[in-house]
Amino acid sequence: MSKAASRISAPELLIEQLRSMLGIRVSTSPSVLEQHGRGESWHPPQAPHAVCFAHSTEEVAAIVRLCAANRTPVIAYGTGTSLEGQVQAVHGGVCIDLSQMNQVLEVNSDDLDCRVQAGVTRRELNHYLRETGLFFPVDPGADTSIGGMTATRASGTNAVRYGTMRENVLGLTVVSASGEIIKTGTRARKSAAGYDLTHLFVGSEGTLGVITEISLRLFGISEAISAAIVNFPDVRSAAETTIQTIQMGIPVARIEILDSGYMKAINAYSKTSYPELDTLFLEFHGTTAGVAEQVQMFDEISREFGASGFQWADQESDRQKLWRARHDAYYAGLAVSPGSRGYVTDVCVPISRLADCIAETQADIAASGLFAPIIGHVGDGNFHSTIFIDPDDETMFARALELDRRMVQRAQAMGGTCTGEHGIGIGKLKHMRNEHGDGAIAAMQAIKAALDPHNIMNPGKIVDC
Amino acid sequence: MSKAASRISAPELLIEQLRSMLGIRVSTSPSVLEQHGRGESWHPPQAPHAVCFAHSTEEVAAIVRLCAANRTPVIAYGTGTSLEGQVQAVHGGVCIDLSQMNQVLEVNSDDLDCRVQAGVTRRELNHYLRETGLFFPVDPGADTSIGGMTATRASGTNAVRYGTMRENVLGLTVVSASGEIIKTGTRARKSAAGYDLTHLFVGSEGTLGVITEISLRLFGISEAISAAIVNFPDVRSAAETTIQTIQMGIPVARIEILDSGYMKAINAYSKTSYPELDTLFLEFHGTTAGVAEQVQMFDEISREFGASGFQWADQESDRQKLWRARHDAYYAGLAVSPGSRGYVTDVCVPISRLADCIAETQADIAASGLFAPIIGHVGDGNFHSTIFIDPDDETMFARALELDRRMVQRAQAMGGTCTGEHGIGIGKLKHMRNEHGDGAIAAMQAIKAALDPHNIMNPGKIVDC
Repeated sequence: MSKAASRISAPELLIEQLRSMLGIRVSTSPSVLEQHGRGESWHPPQAPHAVCFAHSTEEVAAIVRLCAANRTPVIAYGTGTSLEGQVQAVHGGVCIDLSQMNQVLEVNSDDLDCRVQAGVTRRELNHYLRETGLFFPVDPGADTSIGGMTATRASGTNAVRYGTMRENVLGLTVVSASGEIIKTGTRARKSAAGYDLTHLFVGSEGTLGVITEISLRLFGISEAISAAIVNFPDVRSAAETTIQTIQMGIPVARIEILDSGYMKAINAYSKTSYPELDTLFLEFHGTTAGVAEQVQMFDEISREFGASGFQWADQESDRQKLWRARHDAYYAGLAVSPGSRGYVTDVCVPISRLADCIAETQADIAASGLFAPIIGHVGDGNFHSTIFIDPDDETMFARALELDRRMVQRAQAMGGTCTGEHGIGIGKLKHMRNEHGDGAIAAMQAIKAALDPHNIMNPGKIVDC
Repeated sequence: MSKAASRISAPELLIEQLRSMLGIRVSTSPSVLEQHGRGESWHPPQAPHAVCFAHSTEEVAAIVRLCAANRTPVIAYGTGTSLEGQVQAVHGGVCIDLSQMNQVLEVNSDDLDCRVQAGVTRRELNHYLRETGLFFPVDPGADTSIGGMTATRASGTNAVRYGTMRENVLGLTVVSASGEIIKTGTRARKSAAGYDLTHLFVGSEGTLGVITEISLRLFGISEAISAAIVNFPDVRSAAETTIQTIQMGIPVARIEILDSGYMKAINAYSKTSYPELDTLFLEFHGTTAGVAEQVQMFDEISREFGASGFQWADQESDRQKLWRARHDAYYAGLAVSPGSRGYVTDVCVPISRLADCIAETQADIAASGLFAPIIGHVGDGNFHSTIFIDPDDETMFARALELDRRMVQRAQAMGGTCTGEHGIGIGKLKHMRNEHGDGAIAAMQAIKAALDPHNIMNPGKIVDC
């Protein structure tokens, strides 16, 4: 593959051209550049040369055409919440901030779909939908942009029932590496017409083009919703309960594990008084009778594995409190490890291997001496251990890297993946070849070279392995 | 894109090389060649130069390497049931018949997945699964190969609940245009690791590589299954009932329309005595209580639209009889039009446009004077009009072509697609650009050129527009 220029040496002319088009919506302020050169992970920031705040697909196309003419890297930016160094400008270049492209363009209630600009966040979308009885289910925790979620194939809680971005993106508008506007998909629910470009761009992390508009599936809000937490004697029992629940076909909407370490941190941070045991957080959606049936089936399974202490939340305010505690787990972990930084791991295995994978990981964590509680979307076989490290302790960081490497290799050996939902960025590049093999990597590189022959679209990510 | 050689002039040496590898599993018998040059559609046969019966992925790779060295087209063949000329050897070349690669390689009951060779048919797979309590739901009617279903992104009945091949293929083994073996996907239910090659190959109709193995999702057979037919005063009422059913989120497993023309033909062919009215064929899957609830909700909706004559089939034998009648509709149509050939159309629109699309199509059919009853997977917005034509009447064929053209343009104008499930082949090539636009077509062509630089993989299909 042709290499992108190493950091461009004379960006002044390009920046001048961008300014003549966008005026003050081009920034070279050091703080803006620094902010746009990093996500929320431990990866060191790598700032772009300039940040453009785009307002339309046509503007994005014009920016990309200028960058293409100058062989300058282009990095798309949403909310800066990525976790594997996806927005780091490893070769410099121009960051296109899409956060001001935040319009919901259409909602088709009858077809259960909508179309949004890339900068709309998932909470903004659900707020917009509040009168319709519909919602967009993909929920990675942070209030991320739909564009960023699409580009990283995000998922999170709810995916076990409603799918990830892979299942919920119906079509896209994408600006290609040459600045052409590509539309993918139709509004029909299925099609057999040609190559599936939609799925190719979902998860491509800006390396094949800049996603500017997204058509999404929506779902009706269920008549009945019931959430609960329930405690287990150990993580393996919680995992086994999850496995049985999935195998029985119970359409659970959320099934999340938090180990005792995380529950202690949550109580300290959120002023809650949950039992400090290995715990599942659950949610059931359906008709009133359907939810009652699901709950009963789950109850029977979980008691076989020693479950106790069911706490139900049927009112919306109680449910929100419960899920707020779940989503704040990362901040709770930081709060109980003052001065620490979280190193978030992310593996996913076939559900039959989940209990083994978590148990082996726990043993490995215990041996490492690190504080690395486990949290996960276990209905999908996906879990994270967040390793809280002292940023000034290089040996600690090295141990975290090694723990992560072993987690990935364990998951891959079990038929799983190095990343369930955080993507590759620069952080997981080193695991790509082991996961996919030479043939698939060669195919990915050929596609990258075909769609981005000058390697200007977020270079250094995904296929640079 | 580089063009494939127009029909190769001296295939003798290549055929000799193939014979030295495969012995009698290379055929140049005229009847075998003719059979492998056509599907089940009206498109005239175009025979390959030779047919190879492969037994393994490695053999397929070796065949492709020989063909690549000779710049000879390669066409993969499953059961020959495609409907848009997918297997026609428009530039001659070598057909690889995968029907003898018919092993189920693994079934992982705990993970609800399996891996099969491409030549396994869907009925063979479900027969193999009969003791497990699991099934593979995608059901296009004919007993097609899983490889062919994957390559054409097939769907059929059940897709409204369980998805199409797009949703149910987890991973693939593919032989590339250079004869390399590519593995895509992992056994994890989700992954954010790199480009989604699985979805790129699903629906690529052999133009990017030969699919030799497929990993599939499986589902538990529901505790309760209930099927029914119900009559409506007109097709619009049946379509409106379908729209409401989907919008209400009733998880119907099958919801199929057959108009009065098809019901008459079925009664004549299957010796049944169904009311000869516009009819929905339905199936509900779930727990006993869940199915009862679905049925009640559907009943209320359908009565608002004038439904009558519910006939329920709760016993498996009754259900099989009902679905056999549905699946035999095509043959029933042929039987009541002696000497005719079926020209099958295939459009799919957003569900909100379904009633209008069907009504306008019916008016158009009536004006055309053709016998073209309507059948469809209306829960997905997908329907077919099968035009029964006299093969010797060229003006009738021209009218059918024109009717089809108008159906496609109507569907595309409504935000739909030229093909819900039959694929592009050569039959729908002319509609690709109108559906996708120049940008997407250019991207598809670039991908084709990157993965198949000498244009030997099923040339003349999908992107040759």
